[in-house]
Amino acid sequence: MSTNVLRTTDGWWVVRHERAVRIDTKAVTTAELLADRDAVREAAASAESGMPVADLVALPPVTTPCRVVAQMVNYRSHAKDSGFTGDIPPTFFRKASGSVSGPHDTIIRPAHVKFLDYEVELGLVMGAPLPVGTIVEEQDLPRYVAGLVLTNDVSARDVQLTKTQFYESKSYPTFTPTGPYLALLEPEDFTHLLNLRLRLSVNGVPRQDRTLTDMIVRPAQALTLLARFQTLAPGDLLLTGTPGGTALKAPPKAAEKIAALLPPALKWKAFFKGQAKNPKYLRNGDLVTATIATPDGRIDLGEQRTPIADAS
Amino acid sequence: MSTNVLRTTDGWWVVRHERAVRIDTKAVTTAELLADRDAVREAAASAESGMPVADLVALPPVTTPCRVVAQMVNYRSHAKDSGFTGDIPPTFFRKASGSVSGPHDTIIRPAHVKFLDYEVELGLVMGAPLPVGTIVEEQDLPRYVAGLVLTNDVSARDVQLTKTQFYESKSYPTFTPTGPYLALLEPEDFTHLLNLRLRLSVNGVPRQDRTLTDMIVRPAQALTLLARFQTLAPGDLLLTGTPGGTALKAPPKAAEKIAALLPPALKWKAFFKGQAKNPKYLRNGDLVTATIATPDGRIDLGEQRTPIADAS
Repeated sequence: MSTNVLRTTDGWWVVRHERAVRIDTKAVTTAELLADRDAVREAAASAESGMPVADLVALPPVTTPCRVVAQMVNYRSHAKDSGFTGDIPPTFFRKASGSVSGPHDTIIRPAHVKFLDYEVELGLVMGAPLPVGTIVEEQDLPRYVAGLVLTNDVSARDVQLTKTQFYESKSYPTFTPTGPYLALLEPEDFTHLLNLRLRLSVNGVPRQDRTLTDMIVRPAQALTLLARFQTLAPGDLLLTGTPGGTALKAPPKAAEKIAALLPPALKWKAFFKGQAKNPKYLRNGDLVTATIATPDGRIDLGEQRTPIADAS
Repeated sequence: MSTNVLRTTDGWWVVRHERAVRIDTKAVTTAELLADRDAVREAAASAESGMPVADLVALPPVTTPCRVVAQMVNYRSHAKDSGFTGDIPPTFFRKASGSVSGPHDTIIRPAHVKFLDYEVELGLVMGAPLPVGTIVEEQDLPRYVAGLVLTNDVSARDVQLTKTQFYESKSYPTFTPTGPYLALLEPEDFTHLLNLRLRLSVNGVPRQDRTLTDMIVRPAQALTLLARFQTLAPGDLLLTGTPGGTALKAPPKAAEKIAALLPPALKWKAFFKGQAKNPKYLRNGDLVTATIATPDGRIDLGEQRTPIADAS
């Protein structure tokens, strides 16, 4: 059974049935908390009634700076949305960890960004060093992954597509809402990963809704591929891709082939002219809600509620 | 006048006229050394004769982990090589700092990489925090940039172009040879930046040779653009792009437009079939040498000599 951990300005808490029990730890960073699992277990086993979770203000349970790595196009439904056909080479990119924000913080749209999009994603929080060259088999996952978090890989599509490198478009402050819970997993919990269901709504209207069975490169393989070049440390975060249903949809194949013949500036001008009529991009005053959980509640990463606001 | 600093397993040294004088400091990281400038000045002013630089084994003068950010296509000559026409949006990407290696360390080609390329680049080493939203004017540069290093942004072209995101292709261990010197600058040195000449040879044959006048987005503007989304800290590293002359050259426009109509897998197959005949990619046993200096020697980042070897 997984243990949900919450972070506030006062420290760390274990959450059960809407009550939070304080963890007796000196940990400041997520890595330090993960090194103090006895304190977490003690709070989880405590007879204290604790206090109502509703009275606490959740900070992101992943502290920064840390490495934030993300998988590109990693759900079949999103690949279809994005116009990919055939094999997609497994690809990673970085997000600045300065983009990590709380699960109920406002997402700020920078003034120069016109097409703001959402991507609900399962985040893996590392519990052990991953040296370059590590091969991670399915059964090794509990050795490397300490827990899971709900994240939103917020994306400035006009910046992302014109620059081709995803780094800036996904790294503005508040572009990685994270939490509320860090769900610390027991080894047996890992066999339930494929049952996790990712859901995201905008103003109450469902936009994304898939389980991990739609995922292309699953966590053990993803870590193996990442370890070809990248070392990770406890507390680092890997975002595992988003399912279909984002505001962005690739143009039909015919339009894309014609656009390929245009110089890039004209191509993007035409593309974003079309996107201006797409009402799904996020706007000032919108409210994004997201959840990730198994149907039986064995793993439940809580709910994000993030309003959208224009930079003042 | 700039001060050249060298790092060895024993600590830090100031280098003058092929002699190295030990810096009396407890600094372990580059950030710590930058905070102990008095100790550097003391060694620089010392009457000690020191020891021959040739007797020291240089480590990269930038310690890791740190942020390594890089600018995409930032010299006109490289833009031309890469087939860009018209405006290029200023773009950043990340390299894993685990790729940083010493100035005379061997560059290891992973077994799956077929097209290994070089990119001599000027590296800026941060001396002060750069918060998000900072505007860096020309005259503010000395406040944020502590010094310069010579780097090689080694690139696995087959990984880079098929994955589209540059992160993995430029992040394998040994893919960022750095040093030998960290040149700490005085404010008046910054007016000489445009005179810096970047040169790289393979087996003694010149491949890259340009000054910073060919640069598109210069350091102050680059930091301003980066600070739209990314915070930096002392000891972090910004690579400022490479001039023309890499092994990779874009195919002619006509070939590119025809290729745009092919599915990606076929397009890349055709492209790399052509590249197989290109003798300029790095091979086992090659020796890459690189220098960056002003003609008057006011700023001289030393020489890199990095052999190429296949992963065993």
